[in-house]
Amino acid sequence: MTIKLGLLGFGTVASGIPFLLEENGEKITAAAKRQIEIAKVLVKDDEEKNRLLAAGHDYHFVTSIDEIVSDDSIDIVVELMGRIEPAKTFITKALEAGKHVVSANKDLIASHGKELISLAQEKQLAFYYEAAVAGGIPILRTLANSLTSDKITRILGVLNGTSNFMLTKMVDEGWSYEDALKTAQELGYAESDPTNDVEGIDAAYKAVILSQFGFGMTICLEDVTHKGISTISTDDVAVAQQLGYVIKLIVSIEETPSGLFAEVSPSFVPKSHPLASVNGVMNAVFVESIGIGQSMYYGPGAGQKPTATSVVADIVRIARRLNDATVGKAFNEFTRETTIADLSDVKSRYYFAIETPDKKGQLLRLAEIFNAENISFEQVLQHKANGETARVVIVTHEMSKTALANVTAKLADVVEFKVLNSFKVLGE
Amino acid sequence: MTIKLGLLGFGTVASGIPFLLEENGEKITAAAKRQIEIAKVLVKDDEEKNRLLAAGHDYHFVTSIDEIVSDDSIDIVVELMGRIEPAKTFITKALEAGKHVVSANKDLIASHGKELISLAQEKQLAFYYEAAVAGGIPILRTLANSLTSDKITRILGVLNGTSNFMLTKMVDEGWSYEDALKTAQELGYAESDPTNDVEGIDAAYKAVILSQFGFGMTICLEDVTHKGISTISTDDVAVAQQLGYVIKLIVSIEETPSGLFAEVSPSFVPKSHPLASVNGVMNAVFVESIGIGQSMYYGPGAGQKPTATSVVADIVRIARRLNDATVGKAFNEFTRETTIADLSDVKSRYYFAIETPDKKGQLLRLAEIFNAENISFEQVLQHKANGETARVVIVTHEMSKTALANVTAKLADVVEFKVLNSFKVLGE
Ligand SMILES: NC(=O)c1ccc[n+]([C@@H]2O[C@H](COP(=O)([O-])OP(=O)(O)OC[C@H]3O[C@@H](n4cnc5c(N)ncnc54)[C@H](OP(=O)(O)O)[C@@H]3O)[C@@H](O)[C@H]2O)c1
Ligand SMILES: NC(=O)c1ccc[n+]([C@@H]2O[C@H](COP(=O)([O-])OP(=O)(O)OC[C@H]3O[C@@H](n4cnc5c(N)ncnc54)[C@H](OP(=O)(O)O)[C@@H]3O)[C@@H](O)[C@H]2O)c1
Repeated sequence: MTIKLGLLGFGTVASGIPFLLEENGEKITAAAKRQIEIAKVLVKDDEEKNRLLAAGHDYHFVTSIDEIVSDDSIDIVVELMGRIEPAKTFITKALEAGKHVVSANKDLIASHGKELISLAQEKQLAFYYEAAVAGGIPILRTLANSLTSDKITRILGVLNGTSNFMLTKMVDEGWSYEDALKTAQELGYAESDPTNDVEGIDAAYKAVILSQFGFGMTICLEDVTHKGISTISTDDVAVAQQLGYVIKLIVSIEETPSGLFAEVSPSFVPKSHPLASVNGVMNAVFVESIGIGQSMYYGPGAGQKPTATSVVADIVRIARRLNDATVGKAFNEFTRETTIADLSDVKSRYYFAIETPDKKGQLLRLAEIFNAENISFEQVLQHKANGETARVVIVTHEMSKTALANVTAKLADVVEFKVLNSFKVLGE
Repeated sequence: MTIKLGLLGFGTVASGIPFLLEENGEKITAAAKRQIEIAKVLVKDDEEKNRLLAAGHDYHFVTSIDEIVSDDSIDIVVELMGRIEPAKTFITKALEAGKHVVSANKDLIASHGKELISLAQEKQLAFYYEAAVAGGIPILRTLANSLTSDKITRILGVLNGTSNFMLTKMVDEGWSYEDALKTAQELGYAESDPTNDVEGIDAAYKAVILSQFGFGMTICLEDVTHKGISTISTDDVAVAQQLGYVIKLIVSIEETPSGLFAEVSPSFVPKSHPLASVNGVMNAVFVESIGIGQSMYYGPGAGQKPTATSVVADIVRIARRLNDATVGKAFNEFTRETTIADLSDVKSRYYFAIETPDKKGQLLRLAEIFNAENISFEQVLQHKANGETARVVIVTHEMSKTALANVTAKLADVVEFKVLNSFKVLGE
């Protein structure tokens, strides 16, 4: 029996689905053990419908969600509209009407996933969203299926293609943040309002979803500290280079003795680390665990075909579970009580770039401030003394987030010291 | 109800299983929805049994396979002895006795997998072997589950840790093949007879298994051309470096219009390619496909804990399928008719290092020989002319394996030209 799909939206990702169903139909049908067919496509209005028909798209376009949710022949609703509303209402209606749902909507799932997941569970329906994290990388299913035997201790990710493209240009070509942003916008990688991408918000959504699959914990978006790339200067990039690092916007989720800690922050990544060579719009998820040790999953984080491939993988999975009569299972079955880490348990090395008056004794005073918080230095560089100001670069040994907050506050109290930037420094 | 395991062998990998069951028991039990217990362990003889007991290993050791296969309480037999026999006989006995089987035995599966897989299918039993390819990388399950929606066009892999460790030393430190081998042996990465690793035979086993999961085709070991790393000279390494490449032992499986082609060969990999930074004993599988485009799966290819993690993932998967009553499914359900590529369809760029007498007109003669086979040059370097001999390095444009065979034969006919080496050259 054919599996019938109702697509919500026919934008970039949705219009990649027919490509796969045509070009890879044989394999998909064999895997699903059924034909898969796009039965109806929801678009906004008649104008859009006529435009698409005129462009040669031969689908049954509808303009009301009810035409999809009340259609008993439709098995799976595929939401690819984006944004919170009306996507949330439409998915809810679909689940209430007994339809399985596939979505790629990270914003929605990170902020309202819990409700939708419970509704799906209650109704014994599938609600899958592999494409929501790292578009083309099958990371969620890998965490849910293959890494069940392993205990994950930390996940590091390059999960925002736009900011990684920009940072790659800043690192490889010495571009400024502004130039990189302008080019990203010209190439269509960045939106006219790039906030979500460059400030780490998009990556924070993904951190929320990864936390569930990797650690069984459901954290809120507010629990994910995020800092973006807009403050990174060409000096920071050059110092990183000099010390053997590249700067990347890194999602980091780790389990500490007191609980989970998740953040998005520009970080110094050692050049020899596998994440250091993840360039341009590519994404990667680096997993640290007690069994495998270190593994990495690399691929395109977005794009029509890669994202549609993950969406179709979800559809095939639902088809297989329908055949097996196991379709009520949650996408992620790993759940534990959620506990958030005490900041004193969250440790890392840090880089500080500090501007000081160019006079004797300043380094000693800095050393005293750090020492008072029990922070010791791994490397110190004095840069660009120009008779008036000097620039001191410090890489610390491991220190806690609490110590970071304390030392940052202390430094802010000293008028003469201006912290230009501080970033996390990853180990090998 | 507890899942009871019968382990065959208690060597490196097998003795990693208790670590995971203890350190990650909670997650494993939650995923499997059952306790998992090592019920019996087969060892060679009483001497070994007594040695292990004295060393504090508190298991029910047995010395006859019959004590395991005739034990009705045992659900899963985990074969971790290695070699073809008696592993093959023991697995067959286990399947015939209605036990599910997990194995990490690439040699056995590559050479006799077909029979064992059919027997398991016939008996509706699970026969899983995630650990057989790239130890800690969950590549087989990813190909079978997540990449069902995608059509794979080529798989490239760094799949032999020993040779990759050696090549990393040769490339990064300028070591000779002999020095690298000696160190690999001292560190326990290479066996006293390193043939399987350095001649690409171990990697060829993995190519056979990957072909099934990636392309649905069951090829024989004899269908995998293999060439090892023992002929790579420090000159080759230096030239690669100079041209922007690193040399790696690459497994390559690609689908051409006429069928599948699989080979293991030392290859020039562009430094910007993700496989170029897979160093030391790490492995990686790089997948090219019509949907995702390019993705890579990176991790340890061997080692006690990583390999045991894959074995336990298989065990958990069987437990879940037992719960779902879907356990009869094949590990890989993707099968098509197997067709082997015509060599004229298999194309690549190639590097040639050729020794010629150091006199005028030699390059012209070389160009004529290549031209006669319709092979054009991308780069030519003349090296180390010493008055007697010169060394000419050529990187060709794309050419077929047929052209490669022809030009190699023609060059062999010219006494003055000595082909020192020729390697495949991968694209970006
Ligand atoms: N693009 C990627 O590479 C990528 C990667 C990973 C995840 N995703 C996620 O995938 C989803 C879709 O992304 P996309 O890039 O395909 O977006 P898109 O190109 O903007 O497509 C969304 C489509 O949905 C339509 N739509 C919006 N509201 C609608 C409504 N009420 N009724 C009917 N149609 C409506 C839009 O029409 P209008 O244009 O008229 O508004 C548009 O055609 C998003 O959740 C996104 O976050 C995308
Ligand atoms: N080690 C890795 O990192 C790795 C990675 C991927 C896959 N694998 C695969 O995993 C399997 C196990 O590898 P391993 O490294 O654990 O090998 P290993 O350390 O040599 O362990 C094999 C064990 O099986 C025992 N054994 C052999 N024949 C036996 C028999 N007839 N009855 C009972 N016990 C017997 C051996 O005993 P004796 O020592 O007395 O012969 C040895 O203790 C192999 O198929 C290997 O290819 C290993």
